[in-house]
Amino acid sequence: MKSYLNKWWGWGDEAKRYSLDPSSHFFEYLTKQFEMENAWTLPPKEDDIELPPSRIANSTYEALRNLIGPQNVKMDPHTRLCHSLGRSTPDLIQARFKIRREAPDAVIFAESIESIAKILKYCEAENIALIPFGGGSSVLGGVSPQKKETHQAVITLNLQKMDRVLEINAVSHTAQIQAGILGPDLEKALNQKNFTLGHFPQSFEFSTVGGWIATRGSGQNSIFYGNISDLVLALKVVTPAGILETKKIPASSTGPDAKNLLIGSEGAFGVIVEATLKITPRPVFRTFETFLVKDFKMGVKVVREIEQDHLRPSLIRLSDAHETQFFLTMNRSKGWKAYLKQRLLKMGLKKKKIALDQACFLLVEAQGSHEELTSFKKKIRFFRSQSLSLGGEPGWKWHATRFELPYLRDELLGRGILVDTFETAILWENVESLYHAVIHETKKVLTPKGLVLCHVSHVYATGACLYFTFLDKASSQPLDQWRVIKEHVTQTILSAGGTLSHHHGVGRDHLKFLIQEHGPWFVEELKVMKHRLDPKHILNPGKLVE
Amino acid sequence: MKSYLNKWWGWGDEAKRYSLDPSSHFFEYLTKQFEMENAWTLPPKEDDIELPPSRIANSTYEALRNLIGPQNVKMDPHTRLCHSLGRSTPDLIQARFKIRREAPDAVIFAESIESIAKILKYCEAENIALIPFGGGSSVLGGVSPQKKETHQAVITLNLQKMDRVLEINAVSHTAQIQAGILGPDLEKALNQKNFTLGHFPQSFEFSTVGGWIATRGSGQNSIFYGNISDLVLALKVVTPAGILETKKIPASSTGPDAKNLLIGSEGAFGVIVEATLKITPRPVFRTFETFLVKDFKMGVKVVREIEQDHLRPSLIRLSDAHETQFFLTMNRSKGWKAYLKQRLLKMGLKKKKIALDQACFLLVEAQGSHEELTSFKKKIRFFRSQSLSLGGEPGWKWHATRFELPYLRDELLGRGILVDTFETAILWENVESLYHAVIHETKKVLTPKGLVLCHVSHVYATGACLYFTFLDKASSQPLDQWRVIKEHVTQTILSAGGTLSHHHGVGRDHLKFLIQEHGPWFVEELKVMKHRLDPKHILNPGKLVE
Repeated sequence: MKSYLNKWWGWGDEAKRYSLDPSSHFFEYLTKQFEMENAWTLPPKEDDIELPPSRIANSTYEALRNLIGPQNVKMDPHTRLCHSLGRSTPDLIQARFKIRREAPDAVIFAESIESIAKILKYCEAENIALIPFGGGSSVLGGVSPQKKETHQAVITLNLQKMDRVLEINAVSHTAQIQAGILGPDLEKALNQKNFTLGHFPQSFEFSTVGGWIATRGSGQNSIFYGNISDLVLALKVVTPAGILETKKIPASSTGPDAKNLLIGSEGAFGVIVEATLKITPRPVFRTFETFLVKDFKMGVKVVREIEQDHLRPSLIRLSDAHETQFFLTMNRSKGWKAYLKQRLLKMGLKKKKIALDQACFLLVEAQGSHEELTSFKKKIRFFRSQSLSLGGEPGWKWHATRFELPYLRDELLGRGILVDTFETAILWENVESLYHAVIHETKKVLTPKGLVLCHVSHVYATGACLYFTFLDKASSQPLDQWRVIKEHVTQTILSAGGTLSHHHGVGRDHLKFLIQEHGPWFVEELKVMKHRLDPKHILNPGKLVE
Repeated sequence: MKSYLNKWWGWGDEAKRYSLDPSSHFFEYLTKQFEMENAWTLPPKEDDIELPPSRIANSTYEALRNLIGPQNVKMDPHTRLCHSLGRSTPDLIQARFKIRREAPDAVIFAESIESIAKILKYCEAENIALIPFGGGSSVLGGVSPQKKETHQAVITLNLQKMDRVLEINAVSHTAQIQAGILGPDLEKALNQKNFTLGHFPQSFEFSTVGGWIATRGSGQNSIFYGNISDLVLALKVVTPAGILETKKIPASSTGPDAKNLLIGSEGAFGVIVEATLKITPRPVFRTFETFLVKDFKMGVKVVREIEQDHLRPSLIRLSDAHETQFFLTMNRSKGWKAYLKQRLLKMGLKKKKIALDQACFLLVEAQGSHEELTSFKKKIRFFRSQSLSLGGEPGWKWHATRFELPYLRDELLGRGILVDTFETAILWENVESLYHAVIHETKKVLTPKGLVLCHVSHVYATGACLYFTFLDKASSQPLDQWRVIKEHVTQTILSAGGTLSHHHGVGRDHLKFLIQEHGPWFVEELKVMKHRLDPKHILNPGKLVE
């Protein structure tokens, strides 16, 4: 078991905490804005957490050991606790506030497709719910150990032992991968052959290929390499009804597309065990350009044109004025050097007639050969009259810390500040109206001091992803507080024409909204398919299908 | 009704015939190789074709007129005949040899979604099979008027009156289109706003948006603009169970993908009535480069590297040595100018140490700005030492005649030569083995003089489409002859790891092979979905689902 799983109460590495300097501007700001608590409340001790007693009978325990190997069946409280939650804000609130929660009755570790097939047959016969578990980083309750009333117990199936790279084909630019491999291990293996998958979600270090596929995810460089749905050539999925395989081909017109029924299936149709993925030779160079653009409207126009003109950036991130201010505060140092820097920035903005409180931070990354990047840098200057260039440095800084931000959430939760994110994708024509609606409506359900930040990323020719973050002082009932906000913001996004999720998926927390996204026919179709592949609904109950 | 529908016995325009000059090299070659008949047998006269009597009762006729408007119900022999077949080789053999064939009992023309919904309800209640009909250009029997034993009649539903462009959005780069519009009408409307869909199948002039989507097609420039599955943002489909709509969004991670169940549904799940498509600003310039590459192996390597190095051509077409020879013969003129040209070519080849009988013709097209094309032309020279450049002229010639080749099939069929095509897609690592297997195995089922040609096109980072054409002297039983060839070549393609079809679809002729492509689970899934949306199987029986 990878060591990071030991940190059951928060994000990522056990040893790591977001460093929040009490003498910093940022600390002062948070204290003032959200009445932040000075001291960080330590997370509860493992021994303080009372897990429900395991419902696994001795005979079941022995049967599991026989089926999957005695070393692969765990029932100790620590392992059960570590698999009792994902990394959603409500999950972490529950952990932190010691709210009594469900836990799997046992955790088993798969080492082969054959043993998974056996386990599925067994669980089906014995009416035991089974939760496929990759990295456990779901922010929507995708791995929560739910069961139906008819199930006698719930077991989590951890796939991290199935972490082999089975083949890297340098001619076809494909790699055949076991689904339990974590991001860094996969990239290391590909990099050794001078390839990359190019899939870097914020959860990269703590999520698996299987999880990326099950949630139909996207990485930070998806506009260059593609979303995971573009990268999957073929899949192998073990279901109670048998093993499903899709054909390993680059493209096809032989009817509806089978693999697009399995991508995004959230562990509810079967256990994703293997994938053939498209890989790309590692680009030689990477470059960053950053700007302050006049305002959000202008910023949206600029990022749209960058994409529609095929400039082929590898990343675009446009922060709205609120997020820009927040990041400026976050990164503002004290001392005369910082003062000077601030003065220079203000002078630059004045010259460009850009008001600081309207300015939007724009980060653009490109990857490629020296020649390609030179050409890119030239082309990207088309909007220089409406923006202030900040050079590459803020980009490199972002790059160095791009997987770190989730640690801040734990730091804030521990100091009485509630944080969560919402994301959607929408056509360009509706980007601004959705943006204003969400900002306006979210504020209605926050306290007067609450904050909503937004950035545009993952741009397409036809639209973009909008990513919202809210921060507010936590009430004495943070779970209820969160629920009200989640409900209202999600309804606002859907009413404004946005998708329920651009890259987080469905999980437990989006399930009830699914019908608004897809209409009854497709929700019914998912039910029918579920029933056919998993008639006893043992797989990941309460996710994707009611 | 568009006038081209008057030509029921062959491809395209009524007035058009492939011009085969009896004094040409090509004519001589065909005569010698295939004992081609000197005179072209005229297609049968319409009056000579005996259609089965219509099974539509008077009461049904009146009901249809009430539901869809009296002007939209036709039962005359001419209209029935024109809707009795697609443009597959067996269809055209049947037409030409006056083999008694099925015909729809009536043809109706839809003008609105509402009337289609009514018609579906009526046909369901009355047990009448309904065949959605776009352009009628299917080469796999996709519009053949089949019915189940339980059906009392079969009606073809022509969609060409639903041909409006509902919206072109220049901000979101989307267009909302009625499904019955033909390629040229759509492009004209888009071009007026300086956009293009970029979807140019060989059937472009005689196929519709609905047909492209129903068969999951690709255009000749798909490597630049995307396959139709990449271009569809959202769909509206009328089924007997109600109207299905998918959400108009650029991307999403909310579970499996609904629209990918409808793309490629071959009219078996519902009638595709509207689509929101991604459009692209028209590139300013177009350029062609053509080459003779040393041999097929080298050619495959070159086209793979062009794609994998992201040179972004808009079209690649690599002919094997057989197809290259065939085209050289086809285009060879007589006279001293042609002689000189031939001499020069041979000298050029000799200098490059390329054997004429091994040489493979490579056509590359790029679209974009002047700057992009200049850069492209520079980059494309990387394989100049292994090839002889022929300049842009043969490319422009290809471009001018790119929709003409299907007329040749009619010309040859009328002179006793059987022609058909097979296409597939496969991973790069298997391109050559599949190529050699198909050439070898096809020859086994042709006469000793039979010919198999191949080109590679529609390249991807991970693989390519291979497109085979065979020509052989027609036997006295051409349908049986065709069936033996079709069966053997298709099995060879599937055994070699290729997909059943890269862009022709499934239709009637690929149905029985579908299980080999998808395995029983997905074929069963299609059945289940069919049964839910169309419980009486009235929609396009015998296609996609048994």
